[in-house]
Amino acid sequence: MEHRSVQQETDVKVLVLGGDGFCGWPCAVNLAEAGHDVVIVDNLSRRKIDIELGVESLTPISTIGDRLRAWEECGGRAMRFVDLDIAAEYDLLLDLLRTEQPGAIVHFAEQRAAPYSMKSSRHKRYTVDNNVNGTHNLLCAIVESGLDIHIVHLGTMGVYGYGSHRGATIPEGYLTVEVPQPDGTRFREKILHPTDPGSVYHMTKTLDQLLFYYYNKNDGIRITDLHQGIVWGTNTALTDRDPRLCNRFDYDGDYGTVLNRFLMQAAIGYPLTVHGTGGQTRAFIHIRDSVRCVELAIANPPGGGDKVRIFNQMTESHRVHDLADKVAAITGATVALLPNPRKEAIENDLIVDNRCLLDLGLQPTTLSEGLLTEVVDVARRWADRCDRRRIPCISAWTATQARALAAG
Amino acid sequence: MEHRSVQQETDVKVLVLGGDGFCGWPCAVNLAEAGHDVVIVDNLSRRKIDIELGVESLTPISTIGDRLRAWEECGGRAMRFVDLDIAAEYDLLLDLLRTEQPGAIVHFAEQRAAPYSMKSSRHKRYTVDNNVNGTHNLLCAIVESGLDIHIVHLGTMGVYGYGSHRGATIPEGYLTVEVPQPDGTRFREKILHPTDPGSVYHMTKTLDQLLFYYYNKNDGIRITDLHQGIVWGTNTALTDRDPRLCNRFDYDGDYGTVLNRFLMQAAIGYPLTVHGTGGQTRAFIHIRDSVRCVELAIANPPGGGDKVRIFNQMTESHRVHDLADKVAAITGATVALLPNPRKEAIENDLIVDNRCLLDLGLQPTTLSEGLLTEVVDVARRWADRCDRRRIPCISAWTATQARALAAG
Repeated sequence: MEHRSVQQETDVKVLVLGGDGFCGWPCAVNLAEAGHDVVIVDNLSRRKIDIELGVESLTPISTIGDRLRAWEECGGRAMRFVDLDIAAEYDLLLDLLRTEQPGAIVHFAEQRAAPYSMKSSRHKRYTVDNNVNGTHNLLCAIVESGLDIHIVHLGTMGVYGYGSHRGATIPEGYLTVEVPQPDGTRFREKILHPTDPGSVYHMTKTLDQLLFYYYNKNDGIRITDLHQGIVWGTNTALTDRDPRLCNRFDYDGDYGTVLNRFLMQAAIGYPLTVHGTGGQTRAFIHIRDSVRCVELAIANPPGGGDKVRIFNQMTESHRVHDLADKVAAITGATVALLPNPRKEAIENDLIVDNRCLLDLGLQPTTLSEGLLTEVVDVARRWADRCDRRRIPCISAWTATQARALAAG
Repeated sequence: MEHRSVQQETDVKVLVLGGDGFCGWPCAVNLAEAGHDVVIVDNLSRRKIDIELGVESLTPISTIGDRLRAWEECGGRAMRFVDLDIAAEYDLLLDLLRTEQPGAIVHFAEQRAAPYSMKSSRHKRYTVDNNVNGTHNLLCAIVESGLDIHIVHLGTMGVYGYGSHRGATIPEGYLTVEVPQPDGTRFREKILHPTDPGSVYHMTKTLDQLLFYYYNKNDGIRITDLHQGIVWGTNTALTDRDPRLCNRFDYDGDYGTVLNRFLMQAAIGYPLTVHGTGGQTRAFIHIRDSVRCVELAIANPPGGGDKVRIFNQMTESHRVHDLADKVAAITGATVALLPNPRKEAIENDLIVDNRCLLDLGLQPTTLSEGLLTEVVDVARRWADRCDRRRIPCISAWTATQARALAAG
């Protein structure tokens, strides 16, 4: 791995695609604070989906314009904002690359909720069209621009699925396998880890992986793909500086991630919604660590000629039921076992290799440190903004499951 | 594998998506002749691309309307035609499924030329958008319709790439691998054969594979994916019945397949265009066998609950240079070694397992039987329609190769 000089590490022009979203916004301010010249590119689709779903972030969030003004008033390095749809406005994207000539692009600009991607044919089709064309447009535009830009993409641990029991640690992107030969010998090779997506959303991330593989091979594009666990938490030290910098917190059945949903449910006295047996084991990471990982990836870019670099961006694995129990123990909440709208393994083990980011200097925020803060500072504080009708998961993975949900 | 009754096998309502194209048209008439009720669905994009490229099929082809009239006049079972873009007109596609309630859908409706997919950003983006959204719309519409429809998709052997030397036969879709464990044991599993696409076009077929994998797993859609070799030849016994039924023959640098290009070049006294060393080994199949394979797949559908069935649809493997030598030996043509516009291995071996289709009854047309017929009946007959300026390959895989081509 090639490490750039300190000068470059701390003053890179960075475009943050999707920089107004849950991960994108705290990531953008963190990069600006680290000394980078940040341009947020976003079509504000996440806010528009709130309107579609009739739901709001539990935390009150400011407009992107107010966010940027507040950031400057708090002494941060000014960031700019471009309202652009990378999946639909290729020519504007290409112009932007040519004008800005960024050294790195962080790519969060995808529809990122599995339940939303399963709501209807329209939602499935939007997710595929938006995510695949967005990623492909970015790759195409970089090739056409002729610029040497490092892409840092937010992928997901979910590309591997959780149903199979390989019995081994999930490696960072590449799996060494042996292919038995007719003569009894074995041919050893390193392959992209096989994928087994659990929703249309997860499927689009497996498609991204092949787009990256191809454009890295054919055009030498430098790419870091961060296979992220389930993010929990809300604010970072920087977004806590001013109320107008506050990050979003989703608790609804479509966009709320499991642990944040438990925290909010505990805060309002709603039984914790465990779907299925709760035996599903998942990988987790705090939002503070997520933004730090992106910063580390930019500061330590892959070299020209390197293959796609894949990191497992997670810090802890837990069974969903164990998480519910932890939250219940802190808060006194009760746990409700509900039908599972997803088609997934009833339970699974999960061991993940995350040495790469630890080696680069990540110091994880542990669940035991962060849980109570989230409950008190965020979930209880904004509890009166919660619309309880938006808590149930209503997206079903199949027609059979839709009937079961309706009956349950 | 579940075999349907003879009654169902010979009278299935079949939609042929892309049924006006090079493989689609002879496939459609073959299915109609076999007794199926055929509806051709096509947006005529292939004819429109001819207009864009300023080139025509070497053989004169009739309009789709004249083709259908001729087919009826020749005594064939009448086919219908629907002008519809499956990638862009989802609601019409869903309506069509609900109205026609087909038992099988043959899916040829993708941009299928690697050089065309590499011409420019616009062509890359069109290929990805058209192929991914087309396939995904089809899958979505089948789920939404609630119908149990068998998809027969035309994929390509090219998804596996030709650069690596696994040293083993390419199996039919699934590869058995062993994953070394920390304790020294090996965990054995069957995975989708790893892919290594060589162009944006081939990449879209690797994306298709994941779409099929997911929708088969989540929604139980029955799918046969035919990983086809390079097709050669022009007409079948049926398209030979009337001049208006004649199939297209592409010889240009974008759409012409390698062996057909050699045949036409030999017919007009043009040196055979071998790109690179000619050491590339590829899999081939005659168009007559291609249409027969689709018929066999429909007559022997997978059962409900079966995973995606993948067949290698090829009959012979040859080195490109050996093919050129064969054609030269028959015709007296000379061979020209040209710069390679593609980024690919200089040479490779290729051993392919194709037992599944042979077991279903395929009787291959061999190169030695068919070559001379093609030269005399097709290439020489229509030689005066050839535009020599359209023979060179001008699509380059990378900027470096584009400069080499321009200099060469």
